[in-house]
Amino acid sequence: MLEKMGQAAKKASYQIVQLSSAEKNQVLMTIADQLEADSAIILSANEQDLADARQNGMSAALLDRLMLNPARLQGIASDVRQVCQLADPVGQIIDGGLLDSGLRIERRRVPLGVVGVIYEARPNVTVDVASLCLKTGNAAILRGGKETYRTNAATVQVIQRALEKHGLPKSAIQAIENPDRELVNQMLKLDRYIDMLIPRGGAGLHKLCRENSTIPVISGGIGVCHIFVDESMETEAALDIIVNAKKQRPSACNSVETLLVHRNIAGRFLVPFSARMAQENIKLHADGNAIAPLQSGPAAVSAVQDSEYRDEWLSLDLNVKLVDDIDEAVAHIREYSTQHSDAILTRSIANAERFVSQVDSAAVFVNASTRFTDGGQFGLGAEVAVSTQKLHARGPMGLEALTTYKWVAFGQDTLRS
Amino acid sequence: MLEKMGQAAKKASYQIVQLSSAEKNQVLMTIADQLEADSAIILSANEQDLADARQNGMSAALLDRLMLNPARLQGIASDVRQVCQLADPVGQIIDGGLLDSGLRIERRRVPLGVVGVIYEARPNVTVDVASLCLKTGNAAILRGGKETYRTNAATVQVIQRALEKHGLPKSAIQAIENPDRELVNQMLKLDRYIDMLIPRGGAGLHKLCRENSTIPVISGGIGVCHIFVDESMETEAALDIIVNAKKQRPSACNSVETLLVHRNIAGRFLVPFSARMAQENIKLHADGNAIAPLQSGPAAVSAVQDSEYRDEWLSLDLNVKLVDDIDEAVAHIREYSTQHSDAILTRSIANAERFVSQVDSAAVFVNASTRFTDGGQFGLGAEVAVSTQKLHARGPMGLEALTTYKWVAFGQDTLRS
Repeated sequence: MLEKMGQAAKKASYQIVQLSSAEKNQVLMTIADQLEADSAIILSANEQDLADARQNGMSAALLDRLMLNPARLQGIASDVRQVCQLADPVGQIIDGGLLDSGLRIERRRVPLGVVGVIYEARPNVTVDVASLCLKTGNAAILRGGKETYRTNAATVQVIQRALEKHGLPKSAIQAIENPDRELVNQMLKLDRYIDMLIPRGGAGLHKLCRENSTIPVISGGIGVCHIFVDESMETEAALDIIVNAKKQRPSACNSVETLLVHRNIAGRFLVPFSARMAQENIKLHADGNAIAPLQSGPAAVSAVQDSEYRDEWLSLDLNVKLVDDIDEAVAHIREYSTQHSDAILTRSIANAERFVSQVDSAAVFVNASTRFTDGGQFGLGAEVAVSTQKLHARGPMGLEALTTYKWVAFGQDTLRS
Repeated sequence: MLEKMGQAAKKASYQIVQLSSAEKNQVLMTIADQLEADSAIILSANEQDLADARQNGMSAALLDRLMLNPARLQGIASDVRQVCQLADPVGQIIDGGLLDSGLRIERRRVPLGVVGVIYEARPNVTVDVASLCLKTGNAAILRGGKETYRTNAATVQVIQRALEKHGLPKSAIQAIENPDRELVNQMLKLDRYIDMLIPRGGAGLHKLCRENSTIPVISGGIGVCHIFVDESMETEAALDIIVNAKKQRPSACNSVETLLVHRNIAGRFLVPFSARMAQENIKLHADGNAIAPLQSGPAAVSAVQDSEYRDEWLSLDLNVKLVDDIDEAVAHIREYSTQHSDAILTRSIANAERFVSQVDSAAVFVNASTRFTDGGQFGLGAEVAVSTQKLHARGPMGLEALTTYKWVAFGQDTLRS
């Protein structure tokens, strides 16, 4: 079955690739309209998914993530209209020139072809990914979380109706509706048809894809992010940034998990730090040297385990470690960071540049919250995923990350000598 | 053992990444000098490899590929000096700007870190890859063909001596000297230390890497390349291009393997085509419709098998098929091409653009030989590999393909609201 889906997607991609930006935007507008017109179908499918989820004892937080209502669906449709406003990277000439051989050459930006996306129980991702793929001339095969499979199926059918209104094959956007996990394993082997695979989920999903996929995979989304408070940094300003990086949205991958504090400022820093953390309900996990001074403060504190340095908290918990200097901070980050987002807070221009050049992460911040690592915040207008690998795209992936290029060479019956 | 090599390479990469372009060029000059100074060591190791290869009955062609002599070693050293002349992409600001939040952001081009390369019995590749990796601030782990393991080991020792002369860790360039194939399997799992894996070899090696590597892999190097002769093309000019694409270097991946001829010109084209192919000693493999007219010509001809459309000949053999029109030519290429290099020969501007936009290959040519797909020919100054996948790099990979970027953001104690 997946083989057939792959074939159909590849075939559809040959038609989608030929659309102009104006034509693609018309399709997107129809999708937005259709999502509103057919909202009752999607909402009723979503209600069934919710009922099952409640019966299976899903937590209130997850139920909320899964839930659609007219306002949320309206928001999703208006996001699609926003995508129309973005510049289309396809067709851009990256570079080129006239070669000594007489060949006129250019690198032309083109769609990838077929994009595969595996994601969890967020029903908005279906429309999000479909609209970004279509905007960049790609077909897509989507595999959403099994908890939302009815919602996803209904949503994709609405998208397919919009495609057919424009005379386009509905196989341009397909969902794997069967929640059987074995189909994921089959999907990972469809390298003949799928050009890029984006897993959006936890560490387990990324590992599964990295180890089993024969399709090039984008790894990312896991953020063990650090903030290093250098000795030149003022305490109050540092505390504001730390609270923002931890609390603005604790469950996000770009929230801070470990604070590294220069040992020389422990004396002036740790007391107000503990007071502020207590006020913000942030629980501390401190290393051997920091735990004694912190225990006399008001914030909850326990001893940090090595494994806690390696995993995301995604909650109001924060590791704290004293370091001798910037070198020890960089060494700690090299050992424990997932290369997502790391920050230095400093007034030293030399240390700022040193940190930026030595920390090997997708995003490196000087005197700013790690929470900025985001396609919207970085001005990309959209975000398909956040990559923490180094090939193809790194950090927030916008429309450009859904394209590749081809070399086009025009000769005049030109021979290689 | 490989775990330790990986660790050491990653550690060395942190030092190499800090070098300026001038410092890196000095190291490269020392490597070139050292290759000349220590040529006796390398040539004697090469003689032992050659003696073993002769004993194992290696063909004359392969022996020649494996063989080093003073002139070839001199050429290798001068290639290293050439690499010094190339512009260093590291440090380049790709784009950036001031965001509404007040963040000043830039995408800064940086080395990948550690590059893994698996290649066959070409001793020049060792120096080639090492110099390109160092030029771009990367460390490298090399695994050459077992037939040249002594030559490679001696060469890497010479490179390491040059590194140490500059106070750099010799683990920046390491070779897996043990020819045991099991070590390749271990190397494929070193995703913790190796950032990108480049296999340079046949289809079997690429399949092994795609299926087993947990490191992002660059697939490529396999070229089933096509030339389509459209009905508006003159016969003589077409024949010159076909001969160039087949004969200029038949064993190269960018040589043509299948010729597609518009049915409407079969009458005027096939007779002179057969005469020219006979003259050039090119053996034809023709489809059902082309075989009868070709059998009356002087060129050797047999019936083509479907499997022959799928594999590289890499010899003076050429498949020939008649197609109804450009659509059938494109459909054939979509089915059988390895997406390396495909060409149209035409005088129709509409068909040229149609072919260019519909053929999904790394390089698409209009009125030129497919033999131009090459880093040197395309003006990149060097070539690490030719990618036929769509992620990261496509077609000839120059220095830029050995880099990634990081997002660097400077704030003024900037918080996300």
